[in-house]
Amino acid sequence: MGKIVITVGREYGSGGRFVAKLVADKLGIKFYDKELIALSAQESNMSEKVIEDLDEKAAERFFYALPATGYIPSSSSDFNLTMNDKLFLLQSNVIRNVANKESAVIVGRAADYVLRNNAGVLNVFIHAPLETRVRNAVKNYGLNPVTAEKVVKKTDETRKKYYNYYTGKKWGDLNNYHLTVDSSLGTDATVDVIVAAAKSLITK
Amino acid sequence: MGKIVITVGREYGSGGRFVAKLVADKLGIKFYDKELIALSAQESNMSEKVIEDLDEKAAERFFYALPATGYIPSSSSDFNLTMNDKLFLLQSNVIRNVANKESAVIVGRAADYVLRNNAGVLNVFIHAPLETRVRNAVKNYGLNPVTAEKVVKKTDETRKKYYNYYTGKKWGDLNNYHLTVDSSLGTDATVDVIVAAAKSLITK
Repeated sequence: MGKIVITVGREYGSGGRFVAKLVADKLGIKFYDKELIALSAQESNMSEKVIEDLDEKAAERFFYALPATGYIPSSSSDFNLTMNDKLFLLQSNVIRNVANKESAVIVGRAADYVLRNNAGVLNVFIHAPLETRVRNAVKNYGLNPVTAEKVVKKTDETRKKYYNYYTGKKWGDLNNYHLTVDSSLGTDATVDVIVAAAKSLITK
Repeated sequence: MGKIVITVGREYGSGGRFVAKLVADKLGIKFYDKELIALSAQESNMSEKVIEDLDEKAAERFFYALPATGYIPSSSSDFNLTMNDKLFLLQSNVIRNVANKESAVIVGRAADYVLRNNAGVLNVFIHAPLETRVRNAVKNYGLNPVTAEKVVKKTDETRKKYYNYYTGKKWGDLNNYHLTVDSSLGTDATVDVIVAAAKSLITK
C-alpha cells in the first residue's frame, strides 16, 4: 500500500474524531489526535497539561494587529510569539515528522494547512446539522442538555479562530477540503466514503 | 436495491456532470441533466429552445425587492412571475415527479432544495480549484484559453444567483450537502466516493 496521510477537520459533536479512528483502523494506519500532545511535550519543555490547555486555541490579541494571512513567524525567538504560537509551531513540526514517516490519520490542528506542500494528503472535513451535534454531545460527552448548544457553538468558534488565524483561510470552507461529509448520513457511510477516497488515492 | 435520488451541484469545469453520469451508470439508475429540459417542454407550452435559454438562470430584477429567503410564489398566476420563475416551478414539479417515481441522479437546478422534504436523497456538490476548472473547460468544452477563466467565473456566478435566489441558501456552502468532493482527486476517486455513500444509504 502506498503512503497516505488523511487530515480530518471536524465540527464539535459531529463524531469526526470517532469516524477518523475507525478510518485509521480500517486502513490499518496510525491515528493522531490527543497523541499529538504527548509527542509535542516530548519535544519541548512544555508539560502535557500546559499543552492541553493551549491546544487548538489562538491567543486573544488585543494589542497588536492580526496578520491578514497565515501566521508564519520568522523564528521561534520572535518576541511577539505567544505560548499558543509556540505550540502551533511545535505541533506543526510534530505533524510534519509524522507525515514524513508513516501513513496516518491526523485530527484537527490545521494539519491540512501544515501539510499543504506534501503529496499524498487527503483533506477531510466532517460536519453535521447543529441539532444533531447537540444531541450527540449530550449523549456521548455527557453535556448538560440546557447548556449543550452553547458549548457546541463555543467550541466550534474556538476551533474556527485557531484555524483561520494560523492558516489565513476559512475553517469549514469546502475549497480547503478534498472531501466534506455530513456525518448524519451515519457513521458507517461516513467511514466508507473516506476509506473509498483513500483507497482510490493510494492506488492512483 | 432501495430507491435513492442523488442531487449533484457542480462548479463549471469541475467535470461534475460527467461524474454524475458515471455514478448513474455504475448504480444502474436514470440520469437527468438536459433531459429535464425535454420533460419540462412536454409539460408546458414553452419550447425546448426557450427553456434552454432560461435554464438555471434567475431573472435580473431591478424594479422590485428580492425575497430574503427561498422564493415560493403562492400560485403560478402570481403577477410578478417572470419566465424564469415559471420555469423554476415547472422544473421543480418535473424533479419531484422523477424522485417519486424512480432512483435517479439529477444535476443542478437546486434539486437538493426542491427535494428537501423527501427521504432517501443524497445531496452532493462537486468542485475543483479554479485553475483545474479553467484547464478542463479549454480541453473538454473547447473554450478559448484567453477568455476561459472569465467564462468559468461567469457561469458559476449565474448558477450561484439561481441557487441563492430560489433557495434562500448559499450555493457551495457545505452545510447544504451530505458530501462535497474536489474532483481534482481524479474522476475515479470522485465517482467511487459518491457510489460508496449511495450504497451505504441504500442498505441502511
